[in-house]
Amino acid sequence: MNQTAFEIISVVISVAAFAFAAWLYQWVKKQPSSNKKIAEVGEFIRKGAATFLNKEYRILARFAGVAAFIILILLPSPVWQGNIIKNITMAISYIAGTVFSAIAGKIGIEVATIANMKSAEAAKKGIKPAFMTGFRGGAVMGMAVVGSSLLGVSAVLLITNNTTALLGFSFGASSLALFAKAGGGIFTKTADISADLVGKVELGIPEDDPRNPAVIADNVGDNVGDVAGMGADLFDSHVASMSAAIVMAVALDRTGNSTLNASMVFCFAALGLLASIIGVAMARIGKNGDPTKALNNSTYITTFVYIILTTIATFVFNFEWRISGACIVGLLVGVVIGIATDYFTNDTKKPVQYVARASKSGPAFTILSGISYGMLSVFPAMVGIAIASLLAYKICDPIGPGYAMFGISMSAVGMLSIVGMIISNDAYGPIVDNARGLAEMGELGDDVLAITDELDSAGNTVKAITKGFAIAAAGLTVIALLGAFMSEVNTAAAELGKPLLEGFDVINPLVFFGMIVGAAIPLIFSAMLMLGVDRNAQRMVDEIHRQFREIVGLKEGKPGVKPEYDKCIEIATTGAIKELIPAGLMAILATVFVGIVGGVQAIGGFLVGNIVSGLVFALFMSNAGGLWDNAKKYVEAGNEGGKGSDAHKSAVVGDTVGDPFKDTAGPSINTQITVVSLVASLLSTLFLTISIF
Amino acid sequence: MNQTAFEIISVVISVAAFAFAAWLYQWVKKQPSSNKKIAEVGEFIRKGAATFLNKEYRILARFAGVAAFIILILLPSPVWQGNIIKNITMAISYIAGTVFSAIAGKIGIEVATIANMKSAEAAKKGIKPAFMTGFRGGAVMGMAVVGSSLLGVSAVLLITNNTTALLGFSFGASSLALFAKAGGGIFTKTADISADLVGKVELGIPEDDPRNPAVIADNVGDNVGDVAGMGADLFDSHVASMSAAIVMAVALDRTGNSTLNASMVFCFAALGLLASIIGVAMARIGKNGDPTKALNNSTYITTFVYIILTTIATFVFNFEWRISGACIVGLLVGVVIGIATDYFTNDTKKPVQYVARASKSGPAFTILSGISYGMLSVFPAMVGIAIASLLAYKICDPIGPGYAMFGISMSAVGMLSIVGMIISNDAYGPIVDNARGLAEMGELGDDVLAITDELDSAGNTVKAITKGFAIAAAGLTVIALLGAFMSEVNTAAAELGKPLLEGFDVINPLVFFGMIVGAAIPLIFSAMLMLGVDRNAQRMVDEIHRQFREIVGLKEGKPGVKPEYDKCIEIATTGAIKELIPAGLMAILATVFVGIVGGVQAIGGFLVGNIVSGLVFALFMSNAGGLWDNAKKYVEAGNEGGKGSDAHKSAVVGDTVGDPFKDTAGPSINTQITVVSLVASLLSTLFLTISIF
Repeated sequence: MNQTAFEIISVVISVAAFAFAAWLYQWVKKQPSSNKKIAEVGEFIRKGAATFLNKEYRILARFAGVAAFIILILLPSPVWQGNIIKNITMAISYIAGTVFSAIAGKIGIEVATIANMKSAEAAKKGIKPAFMTGFRGGAVMGMAVVGSSLLGVSAVLLITNNTTALLGFSFGASSLALFAKAGGGIFTKTADISADLVGKVELGIPEDDPRNPAVIADNVGDNVGDVAGMGADLFDSHVASMSAAIVMAVALDRTGNSTLNASMVFCFAALGLLASIIGVAMARIGKNGDPTKALNNSTYITTFVYIILTTIATFVFNFEWRISGACIVGLLVGVVIGIATDYFTNDTKKPVQYVARASKSGPAFTILSGISYGMLSVFPAMVGIAIASLLAYKICDPIGPGYAMFGISMSAVGMLSIVGMIISNDAYGPIVDNARGLAEMGELGDDVLAITDELDSAGNTVKAITKGFAIAAAGLTVIALLGAFMSEVNTAAAELGKPLLEGFDVINPLVFFGMIVGAAIPLIFSAMLMLGVDRNAQRMVDEIHRQFREIVGLKEGKPGVKPEYDKCIEIATTGAIKELIPAGLMAILATVFVGIVGGVQAIGGFLVGNIVSGLVFALFMSNAGGLWDNAKKYVEAGNEGGKGSDAHKSAVVGDTVGDPFKDTAGPSINTQITVVSLVASLLSTLFLTISIF
Repeated sequence: MNQTAFEIISVVISVAAFAFAAWLYQWVKKQPSSNKKIAEVGEFIRKGAATFLNKEYRILARFAGVAAFIILILLPSPVWQGNIIKNITMAISYIAGTVFSAIAGKIGIEVATIANMKSAEAAKKGIKPAFMTGFRGGAVMGMAVVGSSLLGVSAVLLITNNTTALLGFSFGASSLALFAKAGGGIFTKTADISADLVGKVELGIPEDDPRNPAVIADNVGDNVGDVAGMGADLFDSHVASMSAAIVMAVALDRTGNSTLNASMVFCFAALGLLASIIGVAMARIGKNGDPTKALNNSTYITTFVYIILTTIATFVFNFEWRISGACIVGLLVGVVIGIATDYFTNDTKKPVQYVARASKSGPAFTILSGISYGMLSVFPAMVGIAIASLLAYKICDPIGPGYAMFGISMSAVGMLSIVGMIISNDAYGPIVDNARGLAEMGELGDDVLAITDELDSAGNTVKAITKGFAIAAAGLTVIALLGAFMSEVNTAAAELGKPLLEGFDVINPLVFFGMIVGAAIPLIFSAMLMLGVDRNAQRMVDEIHRQFREIVGLKEGKPGVKPEYDKCIEIATTGAIKELIPAGLMAILATVFVGIVGGVQAIGGFLVGNIVSGLVFALFMSNAGGLWDNAKKYVEAGNEGGKGSDAHKSAVVGDTVGDPFKDTAGPSINTQITVVSLVASLLSTLFLTISIF
């Protein structure tokens, strides 16, 4: 079978995933709902999320329009020099990348904001139906994201047969991820912080009190940040890992000793989706079962199925076993990283308990100990990534020149292969979190709350594992993107008759220059997002104050008086995008600046510096944030003095600091790295021809 | 004139610096002192500092003994293979490195703990004598450190004529810096935190209350951390920058188109010390003058004098003007980085004021905004380092092969040339800080306190600038050490008949593997130190509790009842060293591990990753810490509600978090990087012969 056949198989499996998603969606929708209060609040959340997404997509459409126009004129080469058809293909691929990701996000949000209500109601009947509703709701997102990714990548290649167009598609996915992840991250923390500051701190009303104008925005935030944002982020990683691998595979197929490399990428990605479908379909929980175990088991089953399937495929299609090996190594290391990272955020382990205990001495000690463990927590992922890439290299290097780097990109594909399953588990979290809130607002009673609490807690535990996994996978992907960048530069260099790049030598001062500047970017980017949250929260606090001042009877809770929830959602949305754009532009302009100053060598260094410092900061911030969150919950569960104690007050400070760490800045860094890598690849011709030094 | 002549000139100028230091020391000692209370407390501090240093040096002596023995057996090549004389030379050079640094530290502490008392008393007569006493006390340290460094480096080369022995000397300096900087950092924060926790928080007694058993340890901490630690750190950087430059220069002199390179390094370093002597001698303040201006002016004068002197030397000795250019670029960029970094920690600028305002919303916002600005603050230094290295490259590359890297090392030498002046300004800070405390305990009255306050505040402002400068200089130095590492590897490779290294290509998976692991090390190292502070503070808190419980009349302040200050100093000392050793060993063992797994390529990557993530974390932590410190002082000066307000409480939390950031972890990272770089250079033969991959 040739590459085209595997592309068609990929399309078929993508379609199967969509069909499965549609079935799951119908199943969730069919679940009973009767409680009016839940329906009312749930509808507010659903509409709020839709408002955000529509507004975000509208602004993104403008942004994408401008970007597509620039691509049309300039990429892959200026229209006055090259071939206009290529530029049109590129621009369309770019737009397709944004659209595919947007559709997947829309589907995910749509089902999540229904599944939350259904899961809350199902909890009346026990943990089993409530779990299944939450999980299957999340699985719709998982199937939609990976289905879209695989479908998009296959379709672009089937239609254009051009790997540069694929990078355009990937860049489209990254653009959307930047908006969805970083924008969603600013949105969710703006709403969260403002709602708490005015509600809990100033007025002393409970967390989910419907009088608070920001309460719906807060619930919407969970969905746009954790469902849509996370989905777009992993869509981006999945597309980028496939694209990077395919760019190298096609180059190897042309020159190397095998023509099956690109076929393998498609085959293995498709098998990953198939394994995820099987894993989701097999997910079960006993009547009094443990939801954490159920979620983790389905991950293990998926991993196991994937290994079996790829082993069979390697034999049947006569693939190079070394490359399969690299792929499986990637996946296994990913799972190990997830488990090891869990140690730092699990409340049965030392770090969380240590931070909770330190909180008794005051908030400064919550922060210091949390930061210390956050710093230590980068260790397993960094060593894991290092080992995975080294093993992939060692396994694949003997095949021939160029295969070592391809092996690394395949280990990224392997790590991301089961991402359909990972997203299902991850999207389960905000659904049952929302369900918990709805059960409380719908006054379903303590027994039901106990069930939703258990489901929620499982969501938090699993989330920590999947987050570690996602960052590690993104780390390997960007390494692969570095390889893709070099591939692109050399293709362009060959066309221009310039000398080929051999690599990026850090002793070369141009590389070093780029590396030092690149290393600073993730910090600037994170800081801009966090300061953006702060500014945006101030705007929203002003609006909440205005409503309490101007809407008669609101503060007193007069029946029938409702706050203007829309206004808060509007502020969070507009502000999020306003604060995000400078940060995104900063990263892109820095890339262009470094490229123009130092050419492709400096850009190579820039990407490396960006990856290295980006990885450590992303891991540090995400893990520290998760740790503080769980330390607070651990105290609230009655430890170290419990709710209301000094330790609790300190733990709340840690949690507030951790929120933008783990939900805004930390996970957005991945996307920033991908965007920068793709900008570099796309502008490689420019940097080859124009550079000051 | 040949290299030896310049080495002799260096020795002469070093001796002149020592003579000048002796004169300054006598001058300070001659200043009047009469107040008994000041003398009593001052004596406690002096003895406490001596206790710490003696204990530290004793433990260090054992450590150095073991290290010297290992060197004797193994370095530069195992005794059973090589030349025993070389190994003996190396071991002696190593010990000399530790001893020279220790002597400089001892002198600095000795004078600082006298100058603090003299300065407090001089404040009775006005700002002019108080300033001059503080400044000249600090200058003794500045002259001693740079004099020892220049003398040591020149002497080692005069006697052995062997650059590898020079790396041994440099490694000795680094070993001591690790103990002095990281150990001193743990000591000072242990004492600070414990004294505050029990004194201010639990018992509500004032900051410098003599009933508090930890109060002397706290004051001792300022001296061991900021005087001895900082001095050892800059001694280390100065030696390392010279050593790296000399290693490359000697190689170039052997093969290149000029034989003046090594001469130039000595000449320019010696001129830097001469310029610092002139700058210190010219430092003046008007009767009602501004101490900040006086300190900064002397830095500018030194810079100016240095540029004049090096320009003249370039003409007279017919040096290559391009190399002089690189050197001057390094110095100017260093000064600009210092000034730009000041923006982020100066209380007249936006960041500090923003953080102070954000503190009104609670401690979480103090932390979040401080972290955000701390992240932004890495920008000027990173870009400055990038530009300095790129310019140095551009300027020196046309001279011939190998000169680009040598140019970068000379820009590091340039940046560190005026370090004698920088240390003088830096050591001034803790002296006048102590003087302020002594003036308060000696009850010298409000007028005197106002003067010491002004002197103290100038110390804090200048400290921020010099700290930025020091980290940037260390950054350039470690780049130069990377070049030195390659030089060493190639010398060894030539001897072993192995292929020479061309560089470290990040596309090479071995390099990449090393880089990712190397990037994690500074975080692990910082976290271990910070957790060490935490554990050590707990021990000390227990001891303070015990004293208040067991010493009758202590809590009530019964006349004649004194706490056992020694016990607290003992705990801080022992604990500091106990907590430091695992962190230091971790860094060294990680280097050995990576080298054995991946050989010299992996080590090259390891150093690069270590430098990149180390630089951003060192800058981030130091600047964020300084920012929080000043934000607290800004609030205490009556802004945003002033002392006792909610904003103040939040700002205190920020300051407590910032303390180990800026005084323990942040500045120790430099030393960690240097140690690792030197271990790598010294073990290059081992890594060339043994490696798994």
